[in-house]
Amino acid sequence: MLSVIDIARRIDQGALSPHDAIRRSFDAIASRDGDVNAFVHVDRGVAVRESGPLRGIAVGIKDIIDTADMPTEMGAAIYAGWRPKADASVVAMLRRAGATSVGKTATTSFAYLDPAATRNPHNLNHTPGGSSSGSAAAVAAGMVPLSVGTQTGGSVIRPASYCGVAAIKPSFRLIPTVGVKCFSWTLDTLGLFAASVSDVAFALAALTDRSDLRPGDDAGTVPRIGVVMQDFAGEPEPDSAAALETAVRAIEKAGASVRAARLPAILGEAFAAHATVQDYEAVRALSWEYDRHRDALPPLIARLLEAAQPLGAEAYDAARSTAHRARGALHEGFGDFDAYLTFSSPGAAPETLASTGDSRFNRLWTLMGVPCVNIPGFTNASGLPVGVQVVTRFGQDARALSVARFVEAALARAR
Amino acid sequence: MLSVIDIARRIDQGALSPHDAIRRSFDAIASRDGDVNAFVHVDRGVAVRESGPLRGIAVGIKDIIDTADMPTEMGAAIYAGWRPKADASVVAMLRRAGATSVGKTATTSFAYLDPAATRNPHNLNHTPGGSSSGSAAAVAAGMVPLSVGTQTGGSVIRPASYCGVAAIKPSFRLIPTVGVKCFSWTLDTLGLFAASVSDVAFALAALTDRSDLRPGDDAGTVPRIGVVMQDFAGEPEPDSAAALETAVRAIEKAGASVRAARLPAILGEAFAAHATVQDYEAVRALSWEYDRHRDALPPLIARLLEAAQPLGAEAYDAARSTAHRARGALHEGFGDFDAYLTFSSPGAAPETLASTGDSRFNRLWTLMGVPCVNIPGFTNASGLPVGVQVVTRFGQDARALSVARFVEAALARAR
Repeated sequence: MLSVIDIARRIDQGALSPHDAIRRSFDAIASRDGDVNAFVHVDRGVAVRESGPLRGIAVGIKDIIDTADMPTEMGAAIYAGWRPKADASVVAMLRRAGATSVGKTATTSFAYLDPAATRNPHNLNHTPGGSSSGSAAAVAAGMVPLSVGTQTGGSVIRPASYCGVAAIKPSFRLIPTVGVKCFSWTLDTLGLFAASVSDVAFALAALTDRSDLRPGDDAGTVPRIGVVMQDFAGEPEPDSAAALETAVRAIEKAGASVRAARLPAILGEAFAAHATVQDYEAVRALSWEYDRHRDALPPLIARLLEAAQPLGAEAYDAARSTAHRARGALHEGFGDFDAYLTFSSPGAAPETLASTGDSRFNRLWTLMGVPCVNIPGFTNASGLPVGVQVVTRFGQDARALSVARFVEAALARAR
Repeated sequence: MLSVIDIARRIDQGALSPHDAIRRSFDAIASRDGDVNAFVHVDRGVAVRESGPLRGIAVGIKDIIDTADMPTEMGAAIYAGWRPKADASVVAMLRRAGATSVGKTATTSFAYLDPAATRNPHNLNHTPGGSSSGSAAAVAAGMVPLSVGTQTGGSVIRPASYCGVAAIKPSFRLIPTVGVKCFSWTLDTLGLFAASVSDVAFALAALTDRSDLRPGDDAGTVPRIGVVMQDFAGEPEPDSAAALETAVRAIEKAGASVRAARLPAILGEAFAAHATVQDYEAVRALSWEYDRHRDALPPLIARLLEAAQPLGAEAYDAARSTAHRARGALHEGFGDFDAYLTFSSPGAAPETLASTGDSRFNRLWTLMGVPCVNIPGFTNASGLPVGVQVVTRFGQDARALSVARFVEAALARAR
């Protein structure tokens, strides 16, 4: 994979020019994307920036994110050839930080469950996960060092786990969603994919101009970690159970304090409330599409929107109230723990291109709005990656990244 | 003015057809808008709905709200002729409720302070207020019975006060902002304008499909009202002081319990934090416009965006933290009060078309996300209207409307 930090360092040292760095990504896309289908549009004429911390960094932009200079098709026939007026905030902010948006990455239709054409670079017969399918696969296949996705259920952390890349779903609205096609305004969260946790942290710090997110010197910092099984979400498959066990052994060996943590009972209720919040809002967010172009919607989202039309304000208000109380209980519940460690996905990427897998280990955290980081590092017997997930309190994105680096380093030493 | 409830009742009784009701609005626009300039686009070919609680209700849509069938120009040269792909959620929801969007109403550029061409129907040399200038004026001039606006500082309640119409800025996100041009994602709130508080309530209940918002039988309900002076926002002008005094006398006479209320000190800090939250977010929300079309921005917004570029994450996070604590303190601070009564605007509409007036009595409540209702009913010596404002706890939109109806009825009896 291409490393953001490695490219930035070589550019700093004069060993690589921003233009050459971007050209390498175009070459990698040309040679690898025929199999993977991570990109739905590539803009070889894009202007390369010469300054900024992300100069020379080629970025893939999920195709539900508005771009003024490229089409934005939402993975949906309704939006074929659609060209928005303005760039989404995240696209303009990336450009300000020096990055170069080289293309649009494949998304499931409206970031729901109808699959994109993308394949998992580790095995082309397996799903890359969704809904940020192309963003995860583009980094995993070494085409770009950085990509942008969104998570409403598990659409950043799950494809990152399936594709073996690092990713963050930051605190809700740390990255503004202005110009991002809305599915659920309470849940939609922008996130980043990169080769390693440090690459993700470097990029997020540059994008948001928040220096505390930059990967620092964590030497000697030993986190207190609570291991969370998310019983309310069902049992993991053996691969994810093994990934978590491997990570726990590695961080214990590295000196971390590790204990089992129990989540307050209200978090199980909040897990169940996620669907109500999401579906009620999706009915309203996609009302024009449903009312005017219902026959052009792919089957899974058409079925969801039809089934959710009768959802009323009373159920929605109750679900929001549960979520509000659960956020408070989660914040308190962390107690002395710096972070929770849990599953990123039920298992490795399923052997199918007709499904994008299951978000059940991600949905609670999306509704809670808390930072989640996927750490790659475990590989199953078939050679497919499986990640583990670090979760912290709302607003503690720097801590989430720091703990995730600790886990990543421990896993690397244990191999 | 045209009354939503009156039109709905006459249609129910068979005394008026939805088509005739809509045609009357087109006729009123044709005869009055030459002076007032409330509309920037009128769609005479729009399909009239025959069913739904808002059938026959012509609606003016603020021109920062996306419409698939009409241009959406943001009051800005950059967006001249721009036609979005989809309707904003509120536009689709209005159509579902039976309403007919007859045109786009004038907005200040990007809903900031650079004035639109709209004039106050009560005196054409005075501002109608902003940023929802056309929406307030279109109802005040009797062109449409209902219009939609947005408030980031005071852009619903202030123009309603200046134009002598009822309006609600509901709880944050009660009406989804999907498809509305973003200025500040923490603050932007959709609201409604209509002739009376009951008209506003009837329309909001239909739009949101929330029956508890429908104007009910409040007979015998006597609210406990706290009068709030908002000292942190400075002194009101004599007209607004007189409007509040008149309202207090009227509701006391009507049997309400009325006492002076003091706001917790943190609310003064939150009032000051509003600008930091707004400006930091505006820099990011409008980054494409600033980076690519700076010279085409009108002067006030260009100056704001330039001045706010250096605002950092630390100041923003501190302002958000202040707002978070203030929301809690406000919620507790209501105590036994059903609602607060306070100024809607510093005074009557200023005699100028170069300014849209001052939002200082509105900004705190926008940041708090709580329901605000403007009640018209006071007229100054020059014949210009001045409103008063009812504020309740977050989520208590039904109570805000009920108390506002009490105030409105008391003011009507006192005249």
